Amino acid sequence: MPTENEPRPAKSEQTRTLILETAMRLFQELGYDKTTMRAIAKEAGVSVGNAYYYFAGKEHLIQGFYDRIAAEHQAAVREVLDRETDLEARLAGVLRAWLDIAAPYHEFAAQFFKNAADPESPLSPFSPESEHAREAAIAVHREVLAGSKAKVPSELADILPELMWLSQMGLVLYWVFDRSPGLERSRRLAERGARLTTRGVALARFRVLRPLVHEVHELFTDFLPGMAQTVTASKRRAE
Amino acid sequence: MPTENEPRPAKSEQTRTLILETAMRLFQELGYDKTTMRAIAKEAGVSVGNAYYYFAGKEHLIQGFYDRIAAEHQAAVREVLDRETDLEARLAGVLRAWLDIAAPYHEFAAQFFKNAADPESPLSPFSPESEHAREAAIAVHREVLAGSKAKVPSELADILPELMWLSQMGLVLYWVFDRSPGLERSRRLAERGARLTTRGVALARFRVLRPLVHEVHELFTDFLPGMAQTVTASKRRAE
Repeated sequence: MPTENEPRPAKSEQTRTLILETAMRLFQELGYDKTTMRAIAKEAGVSVGNAYYYFAGKEHLIQGFYDRIAAEHQAAVREVLDRETDLEARLAGVLRAWLDIAAPYHEFAAQFFKNAADPESPLSPFSPESEHAREAAIAVHREVLAGSKAKVPSELADILPELMWLSQMGLVLYWVFDRSPGLERSRRLAERGARLTTRGVALARFRVLRPLVHEVHELFTDFLPGMAQTVTASKRRAE
Repeated sequence: MPTENEPRPAKSEQTRTLILETAMRLFQELGYDKTTMRAIAKEAGVSVGNAYYYFAGKEHLIQGFYDRIAAEHQAAVREVLDRETDLEARLAGVLRAWLDIAAPYHEFAAQFFKNAADPESPLSPFSPESEHAREAAIAVHREVLAGSKAKVPSELADILPELMWLSQMGLVLYWVFDRSPGLERSRRLAERGARLTTRGVALARFRVLRPLVHEVHELFTDFLPGMAQTVTASKRRAE
């Protein structure tokens, strides 16, 4: 029996988790478009009003799901980040951990893709609404870089983790459409991508290349709607 | 009245064009998924058998459409490629010309996107089925580079046009979701992308960077299904 020092999750947290897990199951079974909040509430055994109390709509359930994947990923990468100091090994480990955690949702991701591909959709990984999950994911890459032996000029220390996360989004896009057994092609791409990124980071110390790195990063923040806010927020935190 | 030296398009070519244009109109009005070959034939005033004689299915109509856009683009870029020798101006002109030609199909592209986003779909720009249109598009970039004053190491002369085309596909992806008036954000991205690519090409002459350029290109040909074939075919032609 839990004592006061070992609190069990509050009832409200349990209900929130129940609704989220029920929604994810129904999204997978019926598809995102055909699943209603009413059906989710009924299946979870809560009132419709109660479901809306925890999640203002289907989109918020997806944000809850993104946050959950991000939290599971942050926990799963501890093992590799506490052990490895080689940048390529750290990055490959982080990408592999993501593929492991996301594997159960692969089929859902393929049919859900059309809802998330539009950068102006709140469900896009680049949207302002996804900022919380995106910030958590970028923080992982910040730690991948900071805890490695790689020498990084200080002017690029804020930029590179965001570019590394962007390349992870490239892997996610590839993974969505991957039909190879055991998603082995995505796993190979993770290894190759980690090697390529590590080479890119090593080259970024050449002074002649830095303007290009800045320009790629600027292009990306200028043209993806939610990104500029994240960059501003991370600057505010740094001050 | 046309003489023997000025042949008018053969009847079969006219019928083919009529079917293609009717299909594109119906795709835009009804959506790709809901438009049947039967409806296209009826609207074009030809028999269903006749429609299938020219296009083996809806997918072939899309390939015909891709080829047509590529041919119109090849004609439209002549003006800028015959006049400019500056790489950035040549590339910006080529990208602007593409946005002009594709503008009437913008709404269709947004709803069609989900059919073309899967790299294993025959309708993907990376598929073996799209090779003809892709080859034509890469040939434009080969000419953009070859006719410019930019100095390019011979070992990269085959690779850079494919990477330039890949960055054009990035612009196309952005354009699909662009809702700015007059698609002005896509136009600005075309300018910025041309500048960035030009800088990248200028840096590619540094020997220290060439392994990275090769590795990016290899990654791209290894992981996109149709690309390896295009690369093999272009090597065969060069021999």
